[in-house]
Amino acid sequence: MESTNKYPSRSESATAGKPIRCKAAICRKAGEALVIEEIEVAPPRAWEVRIKILCTSLCHTDITFWKLDIGPASGFPKILGHEAVGVVESVGEYVEEVKEGDIVLPVFFANCEECRDCKSEKSNCCSKFKETKNYHGMPRDGTSRFKDLHGQTIKHFLAVSSFAQFTVVDIAHLVDIGSHIPIDKACLLGCGVSTEGARLRKASKVIGVDLNPNKFEIGKKFGVTHFINPTNCKDKSVTEVIKELTDGGADYCFECIGLASLVQDAFTSCREGWGRTIVLGVEMHGTPISLHSYEILRGKTVTGSLFGGIKPKSDIPLLAQKYIDKELNLDEFISHEVRFHEINEAFDLLLQGKSIRCIIWMD
Amino acid sequence: MESTNKYPSRSESATAGKPIRCKAAICRKAGEALVIEEIEVAPPRAWEVRIKILCTSLCHTDITFWKLDIGPASGFPKILGHEAVGVVESVGEYVEEVKEGDIVLPVFFANCEECRDCKSEKSNCCSKFKETKNYHGMPRDGTSRFKDLHGQTIKHFLAVSSFAQFTVVDIAHLVDIGSHIPIDKACLLGCGVSTEGARLRKASKVIGVDLNPNKFEIGKKFGVTHFINPTNCKDKSVTEVIKELTDGGADYCFECIGLASLVQDAFTSCREGWGRTIVLGVEMHGTPISLHSYEILRGKTVTGSLFGGIKPKSDIPLLAQKYIDKELNLDEFISHEVRFHEINEAFDLLLQGKSIRCIIWMD
Repeated sequence: MESTNKYPSRSESATAGKPIRCKAAICRKAGEALVIEEIEVAPPRAWEVRIKILCTSLCHTDITFWKLDIGPASGFPKILGHEAVGVVESVGEYVEEVKEGDIVLPVFFANCEECRDCKSEKSNCCSKFKETKNYHGMPRDGTSRFKDLHGQTIKHFLAVSSFAQFTVVDIAHLVDIGSHIPIDKACLLGCGVSTEGARLRKASKVIGVDLNPNKFEIGKKFGVTHFINPTNCKDKSVTEVIKELTDGGADYCFECIGLASLVQDAFTSCREGWGRTIVLGVEMHGTPISLHSYEILRGKTVTGSLFGGIKPKSDIPLLAQKYIDKELNLDEFISHEVRFHEINEAFDLLLQGKSIRCIIWMD
Repeated sequence: MESTNKYPSRSESATAGKPIRCKAAICRKAGEALVIEEIEVAPPRAWEVRIKILCTSLCHTDITFWKLDIGPASGFPKILGHEAVGVVESVGEYVEEVKEGDIVLPVFFANCEECRDCKSEKSNCCSKFKETKNYHGMPRDGTSRFKDLHGQTIKHFLAVSSFAQFTVVDIAHLVDIGSHIPIDKACLLGCGVSTEGARLRKASKVIGVDLNPNKFEIGKKFGVTHFINPTNCKDKSVTEVIKELTDGGADYCFECIGLASLVQDAFTSCREGWGRTIVLGVEMHGTPISLHSYEILRGKTVTGSLFGGIKPKSDIPLLAQKYIDKELNLDEFISHEVRFHEINEAFDLLLQGKSIRCIIWMD
């Protein structure tokens, strides 16, 4: 529809307007080790920004899509990675918000600032760029800016694709993060920190539920006060233990995994009268959530939250400031660090349950 | 456990402390016409109040339980009726809140004012007297105050049983309504008025959905601005029509029937980002509600409300005042009036979809 030369860059970098050759960690097949290869990254089109990635981190969602080999969200070869910090190399037409040299945070969750949702205080779910619209390309036109040296198109991932030295991101997916916060800490702000949030809100009890016993020690650093390991509940269900600990049910239950059955457990564990179940995990099997009508009638609520209910462009800078003001603990999230060429080690550490966040430093 | 003479009444009425003979409309078998019979109403025990019913009205819930012949909430003979106004005849031990001669509104929904829920602003669901605890008797001990002249026990209904000249109600189910509001109007305050509520909250569009075309004209009086008859939607679903009318989905959807499938339709008809589905109808078949996880994640909320989310003792007097101040339209709800001995006509009118509320005047 539009040729590349229709998008003269306003940037002054030597590479502006031209393709860039760089290294990327490509996933060529579901579940197989990433391969570091040379790729070509096209210049940004209108409303797009080309970024030099400085550091990135590995999230469970990367693992999920790395394994995924069926459905519309699957597809290879692709460049994974969606938590990152970079520096603007060049910008496409109409981009006024950032310029060459700015430190930016690409985010998988759009914030166009123009749609009814972005303009409303009630929603953070941009309705112009839904994350389900273009799984494999740029949000506006669905096309890719990546190809390998054989000319094969490489797919994008969650509008970010940060496991590459350079990537192209739509301005609706970019936050100007400034230079006050260390970039490895900023990198983590692309992800939810719900437990920490509970402590910030002064919850008297924060009960973590996990099959991995090591998670309690880790969770304590972020505000977890009680821990339930389902394998140690003997003849009681997790729900029964939660109801005992909370005198009838928790005020808020967060489901963080993405399993309909766990949403139902969370719902049952909430207190009648005012208990709220908040769904944070994306149900990967598409299983519907089944709820008992009468418990809803007696005042229980079910709601969901993508990206912690925050609007990236306005709220991520506020979280960064909270870190600077020592109100938000990000340091403890970083359990490991590797160089870019060691990226497969980051996968191993997460798969083995050893890491929380592994920072991957670009070369 | 306790004998009747342990409960000396503080009242001065001639009948205080003694059984009263009076007429009641008894349902002896599911779906059969009520039979007006002589019954004996025992004196109130501790925390109980005996009331002379002045007027009562017929609600769909009476019809539901009149037809119901399976499950723990079924059982005959019983005295139906749960919307009423009466005058206190005598009170049992410990009752300080009302006295002989007070005009009172019995309510099916308890408000003990002592439990954690009653003391919290976040809940209106009394956890001391759940409506599912004692289906057939008094809330505290489950026993009946009614028997027929053959000595057979007659079951209570929803802690009210107002289709009788006298009934006994627990103080937790009683509201002192005062004498400023006409009793036939006050009688209706035992029931939800959600459409009127939408207008009070200044909703710009209130869309009613009903298979009965007459409901639109009736609904207009209470704030309905648009009407959808599912049989006239041609090739579109009700959800599609609602989404068109509301530019993407309604802000609030209320399910008033009690069918899981309609809750799901309401949920689908809500807008992503902030749409709320409020369940008002009691699911009579016990069918669970099935919801798509991803729509919850994108900001939709499901919650429920019993008794409109209000606390009977504190909020019903406020609604009565709104009626007196002409902010709440109750007059239009009263479509028919009958005498007590004509009570089966009230059933016929409601079953034929001809009445909204039929006031039944006691003799």
